[in-house]
Amino acid sequence: MAEQTLPAGECYDYPLLIKKLLGTALLYAADQEIVYRDRFRCSYRDLNRRIHRLAGGLSSLGVKEGDTVAVFDYDSNRFLECFFAIPMMGAVMQMVNWRLSAAQIEYTINHAEARVIIINGDFLPLLAQIRERLTWVEKIVVIVENEVPQECGLTIDAEYESLLAAAADTYNFPDLDENTKATTFYTTGTTGDPKGVHFSHRQLVLHTLSLAIALGSYETIGRFRSNDVYMPLTPMFHVHAWGLPYVATLLGTKQVYPGRYEPEMLLRLIVTEGVTASHCVPTILQMLVTSPAARQVDLSRWKVIIGGAKLSTGLAAAAQELGIVVYTGYGMSETCPVISLSTPKTTMLGRLNDDQLLNLVVKTGLPIPLVEFEVVDLDGTPLPHDGVSVGEVVFRAPWLTKDYFKSPAKTRELWRDGWLHSGDVGHIDADGYLQVTDRIKDVIKTGGEWISSLDLENCISRHPAVLEAAAIGVPDDKWGERPLLIVTLKPDQQSAVDSDGLREFMAEAARQGLIPRYAVPERILLVEQLPKTSVGKLNKRAMRKEFS
Amino acid sequence: MAEQTLPAGECYDYPLLIKKLLGTALLYAADQEIVYRDRFRCSYRDLNRRIHRLAGGLSSLGVKEGDTVAVFDYDSNRFLECFFAIPMMGAVMQMVNWRLSAAQIEYTINHAEARVIIINGDFLPLLAQIRERLTWVEKIVVIVENEVPQECGLTIDAEYESLLAAAADTYNFPDLDENTKATTFYTTGTTGDPKGVHFSHRQLVLHTLSLAIALGSYETIGRFRSNDVYMPLTPMFHVHAWGLPYVATLLGTKQVYPGRYEPEMLLRLIVTEGVTASHCVPTILQMLVTSPAARQVDLSRWKVIIGGAKLSTGLAAAAQELGIVVYTGYGMSETCPVISLSTPKTTMLGRLNDDQLLNLVVKTGLPIPLVEFEVVDLDGTPLPHDGVSVGEVVFRAPWLTKDYFKSPAKTRELWRDGWLHSGDVGHIDADGYLQVTDRIKDVIKTGGEWISSLDLENCISRHPAVLEAAAIGVPDDKWGERPLLIVTLKPDQQSAVDSDGLREFMAEAARQGLIPRYAVPERILLVEQLPKTSVGKLNKRAMRKEFS
Repeated sequence: MAEQTLPAGECYDYPLLIKKLLGTALLYAADQEIVYRDRFRCSYRDLNRRIHRLAGGLSSLGVKEGDTVAVFDYDSNRFLECFFAIPMMGAVMQMVNWRLSAAQIEYTINHAEARVIIINGDFLPLLAQIRERLTWVEKIVVIVENEVPQECGLTIDAEYESLLAAAADTYNFPDLDENTKATTFYTTGTTGDPKGVHFSHRQLVLHTLSLAIALGSYETIGRFRSNDVYMPLTPMFHVHAWGLPYVATLLGTKQVYPGRYEPEMLLRLIVTEGVTASHCVPTILQMLVTSPAARQVDLSRWKVIIGGAKLSTGLAAAAQELGIVVYTGYGMSETCPVISLSTPKTTMLGRLNDDQLLNLVVKTGLPIPLVEFEVVDLDGTPLPHDGVSVGEVVFRAPWLTKDYFKSPAKTRELWRDGWLHSGDVGHIDADGYLQVTDRIKDVIKTGGEWISSLDLENCISRHPAVLEAAAIGVPDDKWGERPLLIVTLKPDQQSAVDSDGLREFMAEAARQGLIPRYAVPERILLVEQLPKTSVGKLNKRAMRKEFS
Repeated sequence: MAEQTLPAGECYDYPLLIKKLLGTALLYAADQEIVYRDRFRCSYRDLNRRIHRLAGGLSSLGVKEGDTVAVFDYDSNRFLECFFAIPMMGAVMQMVNWRLSAAQIEYTINHAEARVIIINGDFLPLLAQIRERLTWVEKIVVIVENEVPQECGLTIDAEYESLLAAAADTYNFPDLDENTKATTFYTTGTTGDPKGVHFSHRQLVLHTLSLAIALGSYETIGRFRSNDVYMPLTPMFHVHAWGLPYVATLLGTKQVYPGRYEPEMLLRLIVTEGVTASHCVPTILQMLVTSPAARQVDLSRWKVIIGGAKLSTGLAAAAQELGIVVYTGYGMSETCPVISLSTPKTTMLGRLNDDQLLNLVVKTGLPIPLVEFEVVDLDGTPLPHDGVSVGEVVFRAPWLTKDYFKSPAKTRELWRDGWLHSGDVGHIDADGYLQVTDRIKDVIKTGGEWISSLDLENCISRHPAVLEAAAIGVPDDKWGERPLLIVTLKPDQQSAVDSDGLREFMAEAARQGLIPRYAVPERILLVEQLPKTSVGKLNKRAMRKEFS
């Protein structure tokens, strides 16, 4: 029974370990189902057995405490098994983003010092390109689902299901220190090498507990509780699928894993398995709500948390029309990830009209329990919660990465004054809701104050003649930078307003408290067309070059 | 902003502190109400200000980190303020059970080394009896609510409300080590001195998180969520009112504190304040459901967790008839206290008929998240979860007292083999539900096996002729002890059955698997009357003396 026998009088110093979450799940929902597409289903009781067998199998391949095991797979029951078995052994699960370039993947596996790779056969050609330069990797376990290419030229040490079949039903998972590293993955910016973040057992357990409370104990829209049916639509390699598989397991919900994302299969699973709770980026939701098939099925029991990019009111309204409950979740790779959710407070329920609710669910959100955030100026001083003062968003929570692995210089930029600096800028309103408005590199810095380019763009867009707008900072001798608005007018409104008229419109907005006074631009440029990137986004880099 | 400024690159090592729970409450429910009888109400925002002022006031009296402050009060907003302010300062809140004898109270205050006492004026005569023997106490703060006796002869250093009024609105609560002791109180057994248990910030935070999930995230009966209205009916000095005030605060629910328990006031508060969630011992529930006033009011929104003594199916049924949802909560002073709740699993919902549900809610229950329990034999080996194998109940959880304060010998009995030994015996069924059946001193120990006296009594009670029954262990040369059943028959059934017939009835129960074979007594005594104590309980001590 006891992993360790303690002398009489000595208490068990209970560590917060991932295996303790699984223990609760087995008590609450041993017969509940885990489903993988239309190919596999098992009970939590079986899941537990497979987790023990996976650990036994990995152990037989030489995996021991402290080793890193890299996992390449679609969203599946196998990935869920890895979420538990690998850290429960005391090893570290590396989630590999197989959408990165081969060179980036090579870098991350070497940097993480992974010794074993578990990989879906579909990705073997990718692995074959880099195998000989993976200096730490000793063993490869392949998941055979579709046909495996014969000619990949790789030495395969085991097949996943055979490995499990050959192992014992029980593995003696040790009582680890709760600060033992459990998971790692890499985050890529626009410049520089990918950065390795990592999370301990304690961090993952506390993230799970807080997120479960945030989603279940507060009465508001879009609740996720034990009677829900969960299906992730954010890849499991992406920040532990936002940590929801751990929450779903603790709650003992039915879990559905969709494999490779194919709209028809996703909609079919939602219907046939009764999926009620998911999370995804706006693009996936957009794809689903505009799919002709979506009109054929009942989505009125579906609740979706949107993150990764801004949820627009247009998309939120389109989803609501199909009966889907949507709201924003916010976080970063560095934050495990959940920081905030944009649901109404219990005390707001019944007091919001449809428009107010729509405007609330597209905000960045209210911190989940135990999370603290502030927006701070350049000196690190917190700004007032007035909905207009813009500063860098900083966090504290029990589950923030302690550092970038083997990157002390980058860690010094991340952690300053005891707060994790997000690189996002935004403002907090009097109700405590955060609105992220920019990445810090796009913000306009003037006389020690920050102006959000998004706020200026949103503000000018309310003028009936304006078609599109971009705000950039241009160098200024006195203030460092001053905002410049570059605007196109609607075809039929070309003579409705001039630059002075638009400036007066902005000044009036400042008088009404919608934007700070110092944010009113001296110059507003009317142009025929705004410079855009190849994917249609505003090209602010080009604008800064052209108009500075 | 930052209590401490850390160098760049150093992460904030987030401690699990009680002040972090309060921070979340303020974000989620600043305007929600805290109510004390018909005498006081304030918002969470005000509660926070009062907590800061209380800390400032106590600091002005010399309270510093590590000091113990003893609190004597009825259930009130003041007690709630103490729940936060005292531990948040780094001091220890001692909850004093003012129902103990003066000598016991004197012992506990001296043993805890309390330096300051906060006391309701009603208890000053009690304090006056022992004041001169309280060797550590330096200051006394009185709560003036009713008239304070002039002649108590005590030196009073401050009045509670004046102390708050004189203090500043903000107190700089330190970032403590999460293992700092936060609360303490004393548990009294039938023999020996009271024993001091204590809980750290980490333990109270984890207890709060797990209990919030247990009560909110699992879909089943009797949920406690942010839209509930909470009123304790277990005194706040009794194991932190089961920790529910911390849960209620985290969730930002409306909280109602009833002061001294008076049935009419309790019912009036339930109605006028819309109370939906409470907890109490069976006696209080009995008093309320049998009160004539209960028939006049609508209790159909009320959910009550019952603990402290066994909830009978009769009382549960009577409460259900009034529309009240009742179920069992289990724990001990040593366990913070919650260990288990007796609600159906989500997967059982809709599959239980009324009788099955009634039989389930009177069980001891299923562990809340992170709790592990087993029943073990005398060697500490866990017994099968078959619903019949009886052993001592042992626990693991992140919130069990680490020791009895300054009592190493008693601690060695409590913590053995890394498990907290409860002194309760019982069995666990295949679904994982625990049923406590005895205190260990009442159990019958035979040939290395344990037989629950309650199980034998329940079993024989199913015989239609039996009125009352008591099971005791009597010495046996071969087996150590053997069970003896002492039985009275119903007046009109005196000749319906004899001792042999009853024995055959028990043997049949063993054949059906309702009790173990070795539990069938060789001897069943028919008597006219069972020995009882002055309060009407079975007097097993007298029976063991008489029949051994």
